[in-house]
Amino acid sequence: MNELSGNGRHPLFRQVYEYLAVRIDRGEWRAHDKLPSVRLLAEELRIHRLTVFKAYCRLKEDGRVYVKDKSGYYVAPGAASEEAPLLEASLKAEPASGCPSPAPALSDIQRMPVKYQFSQALIDPNLLPNLYLSDYVKEVFDRYPKVMGTYSSVEGDNELREFLSGHFRVSRMLQAEPEELLITSGAQQAINLIATIMLMPMDCVMVERPTYGAALDIFRQRGARLLSVDITPGGYDLDEIRRLMEQYRPRLFYINPTHHNPTGYTVPVWQRKRLVELAERYRCLIVEDDPFRDMYFAAEPPPPIFSYDTEGWVVYLGSFSKYVAPGLRICAVICRYPLMDKLIAAKFMADNGTPLLNQKIFLHYFTSPRLQGHLAKLRIALQVHKEIAERELAGTGCVWTPPEGGLNLWVRLPEHIPPETLFRKSKEQSIAFVPGEICDPHGVMKSWIRLSYSFAAEDVLREGMGKLSELMRSL
Amino acid sequence: MNELSGNGRHPLFRQVYEYLAVRIDRGEWRAHDKLPSVRLLAEELRIHRLTVFKAYCRLKEDGRVYVKDKSGYYVAPGAASEEAPLLEASLKAEPASGCPSPAPALSDIQRMPVKYQFSQALIDPNLLPNLYLSDYVKEVFDRYPKVMGTYSSVEGDNELREFLSGHFRVSRMLQAEPEELLITSGAQQAINLIATIMLMPMDCVMVERPTYGAALDIFRQRGARLLSVDITPGGYDLDEIRRLMEQYRPRLFYINPTHHNPTGYTVPVWQRKRLVELAERYRCLIVEDDPFRDMYFAAEPPPPIFSYDTEGWVVYLGSFSKYVAPGLRICAVICRYPLMDKLIAAKFMADNGTPLLNQKIFLHYFTSPRLQGHLAKLRIALQVHKEIAERELAGTGCVWTPPEGGLNLWVRLPEHIPPETLFRKSKEQSIAFVPGEICDPHGVMKSWIRLSYSFAAEDVLREGMGKLSELMRSL
Repeated sequence: MNELSGNGRHPLFRQVYEYLAVRIDRGEWRAHDKLPSVRLLAEELRIHRLTVFKAYCRLKEDGRVYVKDKSGYYVAPGAASEEAPLLEASLKAEPASGCPSPAPALSDIQRMPVKYQFSQALIDPNLLPNLYLSDYVKEVFDRYPKVMGTYSSVEGDNELREFLSGHFRVSRMLQAEPEELLITSGAQQAINLIATIMLMPMDCVMVERPTYGAALDIFRQRGARLLSVDITPGGYDLDEIRRLMEQYRPRLFYINPTHHNPTGYTVPVWQRKRLVELAERYRCLIVEDDPFRDMYFAAEPPPPIFSYDTEGWVVYLGSFSKYVAPGLRICAVICRYPLMDKLIAAKFMADNGTPLLNQKIFLHYFTSPRLQGHLAKLRIALQVHKEIAERELAGTGCVWTPPEGGLNLWVRLPEHIPPETLFRKSKEQSIAFVPGEICDPHGVMKSWIRLSYSFAAEDVLREGMGKLSELMRSL
Repeated sequence: MNELSGNGRHPLFRQVYEYLAVRIDRGEWRAHDKLPSVRLLAEELRIHRLTVFKAYCRLKEDGRVYVKDKSGYYVAPGAASEEAPLLEASLKAEPASGCPSPAPALSDIQRMPVKYQFSQALIDPNLLPNLYLSDYVKEVFDRYPKVMGTYSSVEGDNELREFLSGHFRVSRMLQAEPEELLITSGAQQAINLIATIMLMPMDCVMVERPTYGAALDIFRQRGARLLSVDITPGGYDLDEIRRLMEQYRPRLFYINPTHHNPTGYTVPVWQRKRLVELAERYRCLIVEDDPFRDMYFAAEPPPPIFSYDTEGWVVYLGSFSKYVAPGLRICAVICRYPLMDKLIAAKFMADNGTPLLNQKIFLHYFTSPRLQGHLAKLRIALQVHKEIAERELAGTGCVWTPPEGGLNLWVRLPEHIPPETLFRKSKEQSIAFVPGEICDPHGVMKSWIRLSYSFAAEDVLREGMGKLSELMRSL
């Protein structure tokens, strides 16, 4: 049985205060209801009666309860919910760590059934090795006929973790033992697990501006306060980062420094080294999300920030399945002890391990000689896509920095185009894109839009971007 | 930016108190460190200076801070952590909603590399339709060649939800529209999502005694207080449930009323109806976990409790993939609005949807005519397994109620056998089982053990149970 305990963090009477206040708010007791007696509550919670008494005194001071006829404590009229305590009301009064409702706008936009889908930072399924993959899947079943009959271990398949440990060492300069890898169901789950173990309400989280909208949703639902740092073609303003870290002591800094989503920018090497120093100095965990590294057009990007870390202040999210088979939802998280132990415990609670089938399919395709050929072709195809989008957008008055990798154009609209009108009229013409404010921690970058050039097939892309340009010119 | 706001639940100054207290505990400021000035903190949090001032006054009253030279507030020596504020210390001082560490004992036991594995409530992979399944997988790739190239929707594949809605209607008397179904990665994830949206620290959760250990871990990590109700061959003591609901107002009651894990008991129909009435009356959400329904030996069990509910106070977890392909991790959650909206939002945060591949493979095998044949054979095989285990245990002095379905024997050891010794010596002989205390919310049912007869092959089962019996007789 979990009991109230003086855990050194909060005086016990404050926990009792909290216990009562929250339940009044949730409608479990209503105005003028009699509350449990000091004696009864002390017995229930197995604590001293004076502790309960102190909590009631504070509630009285704060106008939440009143005393009547010396017979007991009652809920003060203004303090209680007026609504009937039905399920709906009880859900409304959820803790700060609850989920926002309705569901985030980004997923709504991406679910719009449009012909010209530029809101998905996914790769055109026709560019993925579908046919090859089904061969590999058959091979997986030949090798592991019982792959669907058993669970994976919580931390992930050993064979996959061993392979990835070697792969990361050779290709990304990351030194990590297999035990320092955890397989999660996509980067989304990894970010959520990290938020679960690191954040409590009112903690500060540092994020880039703009950034990945779904990460913002996760931090917000944990009740975190967001601090933002601009990302530009040159990287970050490190003095600003130092100042913010010093003043606010953020618990973590969520970054995507390589072919950044949505801007496509890449943070230079010298800044990567300095960031690690700042993280150590201000004890701020850097969460390095790195899904676009292999999707460069010309030169390979600099090594991950994780590779410069020696003290365990960087967590690395390698969700490279985006260009292999996004539907498999395979991400590898790398971090050091003791964080890894906490992450594994959180993963156990979350789903008891990523399905083994998905891990084995991924492993066998990823280790195949075909992959390098696929990747080289994919890079060229993505660059062609990018150039089609850029060509169609030329002359609209839009401004963007040509990305050197990744899946998106981050486009500033000319001043005369009202963003809401463009979004509405685009939708009428079956075109979807992501409005900039979704990527903005402050929710105000309305004159920017994210156009993903990776998902639509070449001809659809050309046609759709053409229509969008026409629309822009007409406004 | 998330800011402190008077949300009607907690006075604002208490949120500021909390904000400071927690960070002192976490070692962000140490003894005699100067705390932010009233003016600075008010600016940072964008609230009135008097609110900050009130919070500091309370902290002073409670001995957490002191005032020096009128120049400001300082951390009181006893109030701060003495440890260096390294990552390790900072993780230790996590909120009540953090994860327990080390990882739960159940998963440790199940990972022990033993020959006679009786701790896994899983089905022997040799009894599962592995070969058939690989045929179906190939069919899935023929039908949906790009199944690995795209994400599923957050709530789950429409085709699967429509099929399951019909299947549940016909086979389980459950009336649920496809929109009332959410696909999760196993029942574990479903329980975790429900706990996320329903529970805050100190909430009461009612559970059966004994029950599923991993569910207890999930509720504990949310900081819930556990209330237990015994489950017996006759079901529950409903008067006791009523009394506990009335006195403690639990937020939810987690049950597994059909071929219960670990006991194998099934709650009778008349109690199912009464439970729904109690749930409505005391506004306690019933979470009905139902993975063993189809694994009966003689008669089909009574309809789910969900089928008697009209007011939305029951959530149903149908994780029947256990006997199809546990490795796919497919579970269907059924519940009504508004709970479903909250669950979908939580699922979006958690992993953005269960992999489409796993859903399609499950669907195509589940809708196949071969499944019924497989199921009938599996029921016989499990009964044979059960009888082998019972035969070997006869004459050891152990006592159990022969189960009418499910995967486990819940066995009371004779008094002369010390449970710890049995566990240790069994391990030496490469035999693993689950000690009863893991299934007990109070952690004390030491003279009971759970023996899963479903995972080991027949001959291994016979040999291992024989060795275990011999060991018992020798003690």
